[in-house]
Amino acid sequence: MAKPKKTPRPKAAAPKGFRDYFGADVKERAAMLAEIAAVYDLYGFEALETSAVETVEALGKFLPDVDRPNEGVFAWQEEDSASSDGWVALRYDMTAPLARVYAEHRNDLPTPYRRYAMGPVWRNEKPGPGRFRQFYQCDADTVGTASMAADAEICAMLADVFERLGLGGDYIIRINNRKVLNGVMEAVRYTIESQYLDFGAGPVVYKEKTLTTQQAVEERLADVMRSLDKFDKVGAVGVSQLLQGGREDESGAFIPGIGLNEITTGQLIAFLEARSGTNADTLGRLEKVVEFSEVGLEGVRELGEIVALLEAQGYGPDRIVIDPSVVRGLGYYTGPVYEAELTFEVKDEKGRPRQFGSVAGGGRYDDLVKRITGQEVPATGVSIGVDRLLAALRMRRAGAPAPEGPVVVTVMDRDRMADYQAMVADLRRDGIRAEVYLGNPKNFGNQMKYADRRGAPVAVIQGSDEASRGVVQLKDLVLGARIAETATLEEWKDRPAQIEVPRDQLASEVRKMIEARGA
Amino acid sequence: MAKPKKTPRPKAAAPKGFRDYFGADVKERAAMLAEIAAVYDLYGFEALETSAVETVEALGKFLPDVDRPNEGVFAWQEEDSASSDGWVALRYDMTAPLARVYAEHRNDLPTPYRRYAMGPVWRNEKPGPGRFRQFYQCDADTVGTASMAADAEICAMLADVFERLGLGGDYIIRINNRKVLNGVMEAVRYTIESQYLDFGAGPVVYKEKTLTTQQAVEERLADVMRSLDKFDKVGAVGVSQLLQGGREDESGAFIPGIGLNEITTGQLIAFLEARSGTNADTLGRLEKVVEFSEVGLEGVRELGEIVALLEAQGYGPDRIVIDPSVVRGLGYYTGPVYEAELTFEVKDEKGRPRQFGSVAGGGRYDDLVKRITGQEVPATGVSIGVDRLLAALRMRRAGAPAPEGPVVVTVMDRDRMADYQAMVADLRRDGIRAEVYLGNPKNFGNQMKYADRRGAPVAVIQGSDEASRGVVQLKDLVLGARIAETATLEEWKDRPAQIEVPRDQLASEVRKMIEARGA
Repeated sequence: MAKPKKTPRPKAAAPKGFRDYFGADVKERAAMLAEIAAVYDLYGFEALETSAVETVEALGKFLPDVDRPNEGVFAWQEEDSASSDGWVALRYDMTAPLARVYAEHRNDLPTPYRRYAMGPVWRNEKPGPGRFRQFYQCDADTVGTASMAADAEICAMLADVFERLGLGGDYIIRINNRKVLNGVMEAVRYTIESQYLDFGAGPVVYKEKTLTTQQAVEERLADVMRSLDKFDKVGAVGVSQLLQGGREDESGAFIPGIGLNEITTGQLIAFLEARSGTNADTLGRLEKVVEFSEVGLEGVRELGEIVALLEAQGYGPDRIVIDPSVVRGLGYYTGPVYEAELTFEVKDEKGRPRQFGSVAGGGRYDDLVKRITGQEVPATGVSIGVDRLLAALRMRRAGAPAPEGPVVVTVMDRDRMADYQAMVADLRRDGIRAEVYLGNPKNFGNQMKYADRRGAPVAVIQGSDEASRGVVQLKDLVLGARIAETATLEEWKDRPAQIEVPRDQLASEVRKMIEARGA
Repeated sequence: MAKPKKTPRPKAAAPKGFRDYFGADVKERAAMLAEIAAVYDLYGFEALETSAVETVEALGKFLPDVDRPNEGVFAWQEEDSASSDGWVALRYDMTAPLARVYAEHRNDLPTPYRRYAMGPVWRNEKPGPGRFRQFYQCDADTVGTASMAADAEICAMLADVFERLGLGGDYIIRINNRKVLNGVMEAVRYTIESQYLDFGAGPVVYKEKTLTTQQAVEERLADVMRSLDKFDKVGAVGVSQLLQGGREDESGAFIPGIGLNEITTGQLIAFLEARSGTNADTLGRLEKVVEFSEVGLEGVRELGEIVALLEAQGYGPDRIVIDPSVVRGLGYYTGPVYEAELTFEVKDEKGRPRQFGSVAGGGRYDDLVKRITGQEVPATGVSIGVDRLLAALRMRRAGAPAPEGPVVVTVMDRDRMADYQAMVADLRRDGIRAEVYLGNPKNFGNQMKYADRRGAPVAVIQGSDEASRGVVQLKDLVLGARIAETATLEEWKDRPAQIEVPRDQLASEVRKMIEARGA
């Protein structure tokens, strides 16, 4: 006889690429975001919390296919959604919802509109180690002003955030301007085009491909950009080789060069290496690099304006510095760009020292709501990588005590639960995190195991004997663990891990024990 | 010639039923949740943040149909989701994810496991006024203990939350126990069944329907429950009528009665009215009502245990009270249930005074993870209605000043932007929220309009004349507005809305002006 088929039990697992955050992870992130929000608030930025769900058409970029919208977002169809085709999606960043909100409410919002937003975003990408489909972003943007003072303000605010988080001396904010690069590239384009004029307009061969001259110009320019982006990795010599005759990489493979002449190469290297000890010096060098380009000079002027405002407020080049080698992300932005790095040393996977690296980036973009309203609205803003910054804070605090578990009051006598509750109430009144053991109290060993798992600093014990004498036992679990590992007999005698104190001094004695821990 | 068809611009609107939260709305909610989290933390509860997305099978309850899961959740199919059928959904509450997390991580979590969770949940329901498809929940639960001390603790913690939020004296937590009601209903069932034995087992007519006696018993019992739930509305007399011969409602329509006898009706009314001035008295009355029911007496014992623990900690019946008329939600729970109400008076839509009402509720439920692991795990917990509690806090604070906009430093001279930036830096250093006007400074009227829209308490003005004399003008915008409305000439003279102060006393003078506001 066939057995009746059972419904299989559901699997207890978060969907692939999603995870849970427990205890200290949640608490520390919330505390960090509250500090950041306090700085943003002080600068007059207003909080904005949009819904997690947006119509796909308002999000833009991701438009429905025949059947499903493009990869990259979590999207689905809802009949009753105010979307023209029913498609809605989870937001993939904070900027697209800002554009929608600004377009929707522009008559009620102040102009310029300074806003900050903190919260999860969702990406429908292949998850990997440390790569999740839901993660936090923390953005601040100023919408509706072309003033460089807005860009300067964002940089100053970012510096203040790091100072407030205790990272003073450990960060540098590097500024560049897309327009300066545009100026440099104008000259490069002119040079490349001139080269082809020498050969006539016929098909040419570049990197083993036969192309029209126009195609070849664009390909070579794109390769120039890619080469500039390698400056951090291969240095000035490496970039020079890539721009001219080519270069052998670490594996011994040969990367063909772009075939620029020495003068143009020199200009590009001068641009990348323009960073100097003072911002004024850097500006002077940049001015020279782009001296024949109007847009390039405008970019230099803008950088000068930002730096003058920042230096007047005391943000010197030790904290905020012009650095033309900031190329990353330039494609997206239209003016100033900024990137914040933490400079303290960490070890990479192979144990080699390196700087912690980038934790925030941003810049100016001028097409925020154009897609929706048709108007061009200038905006500038920054996004902080919440998880990376939190990781950095933890590393900086290495050695500091881990977040404290609660004091655990054990249950020796089930009938005196009210007494134990009164003890935790006393402790809490004194601001000490505390709880009564609420499992089955029969086995005292289980209670101590529980206290251990909770990371409790102290266990409180009161049997009927102690109760009749009006005392409690305090067990120092941190010291106990340390003694078990390393202590000498003297330490045992000096600071016994368990002491008896009067019941009415419970809170003050527990506090003493916790505070003595560092000693 | 046909015009080329333009792609229509996307609509700038959140999806139907979703909304944006601006400025103070976000800030005040975050502040309130931080206070609540601090209390939970002090009680040893650990934060848990699960992902917004869960597999539909883990959420349970909502299982996929042929094509789409049931209404009520936002669900869609993902190929790569770790779900057996690909269906995932946004969480609709915090309890289902807790069950999944506890089942998944039970070997790593302490037992009992105290956790709190705060965040948005999503419901795919028809939106209405004040009814949104995304809203906040704030839950605290203890998993893995049957001890009444866990229920008592949740009630005490809830009281502490209200005290911390400044609602002392304005709340009452009412406790009941499902088992007591079960005990009462046992007697009712016995009575109803006995009535039918008199008539034999044949079909009977109840409320104009012909039913088997078994069906009639169940229908009548369900009607009894519904009647008890009307106690708040129609009082003891109304419920008595509903239980016996029937009752005319406000509109004059007749609601047929359930046909109970006087003794049973009396028992039920005694149950509903058992609440007395002291909890001990209430317990005595309840004991009498269920004296022949084992489960009923167990319920009374449980209530007694909870109350004893709470009273030992000083939570008297002025704050936490046994109230058998708490019936709402009893269906879902298996033991103690609790409901928190705010007692201060508000006006309803018609201007009549009424109590603010329920802001939190919870109880004991024992089947948390059974569906997933097969084990029965006892749990108890509470959920705070975040939006309602926030609304209550705002009403309680009526009259208190609205949250402050930033001080606005106006731009009289575009070239001295650095000076203006230095002013806001000074103000911020003193903890005063401040910003420079970053729009086009040409039209000074626009700057003042901007300051007004920002809710700025003070505007700072410095033209070249003031700059040369080392002073700034401070314009008191709040006073200015008040004067414009109501002031006499004397008030104008007494406290002019605009004063000149030395530049180096900017921050202290602005602070004075803001603090004088209440005067």
